Amino acid sequence: MVQPCPAKIGDTLDDVVTPALIVDLDAYERNLGTMAALVERAGLRLRPHAKTHKSPEIALAQMARGAVGACCQKLSEAEILAQGGVGDILIANQVVGAVKAVRAATLAQRVRLALCVDHPRNVEELSTAARTLEASIDVLVEIDVGNRRCGLPPGGSAVALAERVAAAPGLRFLGLQAYHGGAQHIRDFRERRAAVRQAAEQTLRTVEALEAAGLDCETVTGGGTGTLLHDIEAGALNELQAGSYVFMDADYGRNLAEDGTAETRFESALFVLATVMSHPNPQRAVLDAGLKALAMDSGPPLLKGVPGATYTRASDEHGVLDLERENLLAHGQRVLLIPGHCDPTVNLYDWYVGVRRGRVEQVWPVAARGALA
Amino acid sequence: MVQPCPAKIGDTLDDVVTPALIVDLDAYERNLGTMAALVERAGLRLRPHAKTHKSPEIALAQMARGAVGACCQKLSEAEILAQGGVGDILIANQVVGAVKAVRAATLAQRVRLALCVDHPRNVEELSTAARTLEASIDVLVEIDVGNRRCGLPPGGSAVALAERVAAAPGLRFLGLQAYHGGAQHIRDFRERRAAVRQAAEQTLRTVEALEAAGLDCETVTGGGTGTLLHDIEAGALNELQAGSYVFMDADYGRNLAEDGTAETRFESALFVLATVMSHPNPQRAVLDAGLKALAMDSGPPLLKGVPGATYTRASDEHGVLDLERENLLAHGQRVLLIPGHCDPTVNLYDWYVGVRRGRVEQVWPVAARGALA
Repeated sequence: MVQPCPAKIGDTLDDVVTPALIVDLDAYERNLGTMAALVERAGLRLRPHAKTHKSPEIALAQMARGAVGACCQKLSEAEILAQGGVGDILIANQVVGAVKAVRAATLAQRVRLALCVDHPRNVEELSTAARTLEASIDVLVEIDVGNRRCGLPPGGSAVALAERVAAAPGLRFLGLQAYHGGAQHIRDFRERRAAVRQAAEQTLRTVEALEAAGLDCETVTGGGTGTLLHDIEAGALNELQAGSYVFMDADYGRNLAEDGTAETRFESALFVLATVMSHPNPQRAVLDAGLKALAMDSGPPLLKGVPGATYTRASDEHGVLDLERENLLAHGQRVLLIPGHCDPTVNLYDWYVGVRRGRVEQVWPVAARGALA
Repeated sequence: MVQPCPAKIGDTLDDVVTPALIVDLDAYERNLGTMAALVERAGLRLRPHAKTHKSPEIALAQMARGAVGACCQKLSEAEILAQGGVGDILIANQVVGAVKAVRAATLAQRVRLALCVDHPRNVEELSTAARTLEASIDVLVEIDVGNRRCGLPPGGSAVALAERVAAAPGLRFLGLQAYHGGAQHIRDFRERRAAVRQAAEQTLRTVEALEAAGLDCETVTGGGTGTLLHDIEAGALNELQAGSYVFMDADYGRNLAEDGTAETRFESALFVLATVMSHPNPQRAVLDAGLKALAMDSGPPLLKGVPGATYTRASDEHGVLDLERENLLAHGQRVLLIPGHCDPTVNLYDWYVGVRRGRVEQVWPVAARGALA
């Protein structure tokens, strides 16, 4: 069920079997460096989200540039990161059910593992498993600072759950998770900053309430690529989870900076290489990359370097391009697409093809591809 | 990179690791039987589309009930079907480029292989590969009967390409592919029928033009689950490619029958099993199945058997449910989701978990998961 690698070292883009997931290694490395410098200057810890890349190789490259570890969304991702050598992992999410609690405790026997809770029943499950296996799991209480997804309201109920965690054998209260996913995609600079500031106030208020109850927050974690500067400025978080910066979605590129221009701090480093498989008339070309090759939830991909060609319609295995002029593309020609949303696009592939100056330099497995559980 | 199987034989649904892809074996088998009977009564050949299920086991089950073979969209899917014992395969799509042409010819050495063309350059590539490998590839000319994707216009240009195919060493002209994907999802019965009739007229006209040029169409293929009765009635096709019937998307269930009621010929047989991982307030529950567990291009999934609960918002790893009343769901509870679009949902999983009367009876690999190339 693992697909063969679509390229070999030294190939040109014309040799790669399409569709394929391409990493522009120069842009990727610049993104790693830009983020490392930003976070270091801010005096914060970076724990990049591996749900973007699902690759121990990339997590280790981020740690080599100063990241304190990785975070991920799923237990199965954490297990694969650990297999790949990542020793400090935060599952920035709930791990629910007795069976998964045992797996988490097993993992905590060999790596430093933290995870989030928002329900007393889950605290009990995790404590039982950790105690049974003589493991120690670090636990963050998740609060809902505007995301309207998981997490308790800021303030009192979070304190009550934190007290349960602190009292639970096998668990160690580590602090708070306060992630505002909705703020990541607010286009306007001031609106986005306002949402982050409001989330930060709620977070700081909860930290104070915890301190008043005798519970110190060693870690206050959250943030993302879309709100990076606001997260730093707002000052509530001491650990940032930004992950998308490594590749940069087309969608995040639509966020605006303070002067109203597009944010350009990070570069598009991830592409899908596709082939023009049909070109039935001068106004239409069809690519071999559709819904099974590109996540469309943040809109269709952009074409790199083909002005006048627009990806307008996807079916399972086809992408229809509208062409403004004749002779924009030829039958059999390859094009690079910038995915609207990198994370679920990466999850469709088994291999990264790393390219520099037109040649394949590295191939990496998408080791946690399909790690849903 | 292959995920561990989320279940073992004899498990109950409460034992299965979530998210997981569940097949209701009774409903699935009824769907197989209903389609076999329908197509037999119509005197047509059925070649179910394996892009839906990506499983040689399921393709062979369809053939055991009378299907003449399988069709698929990608060369890599065809290779995997062949490995799994399917000996008669149509790639209902273009296979473009010299490297893939060689792979196709290699495959044609061991199974009966047909594929589609809509460009003379592609005919040359395939002929060169087939001649070199002393293989024979069956070739259909694809015409565009309203789908506005691949394919030549009906009539003269299709005849010209068919003549090229017939003259090309290593290739055998097999007939026409005339698929109208857009018609599959027209809700209104009469509008849908009209679109299919128009497509059928164009197809029949092209068949006649080919005959006038001395080229017989052994196979005229197309159709789908959404237009099944119209395809049979319209009489242009002698081979049907319907695939979704095996599982039935929530989306196809929105097509209306002649009396204005929902089509109910086939049953939902595919589900995603998910867990309530967070339940922060009485109006909201959060599932562990989001964009990486469910294709959302045809809308969010429906919940099976939980009236008052609506899947309203997906992020990468979360699905947010709005709850109309208190106590609809409990923290840790499992729910079954009916995917809006089965094909790209299946492609996110490594395993099918086949369930009958509440117990896991079979597990099958999604063998062609990720077979994009």
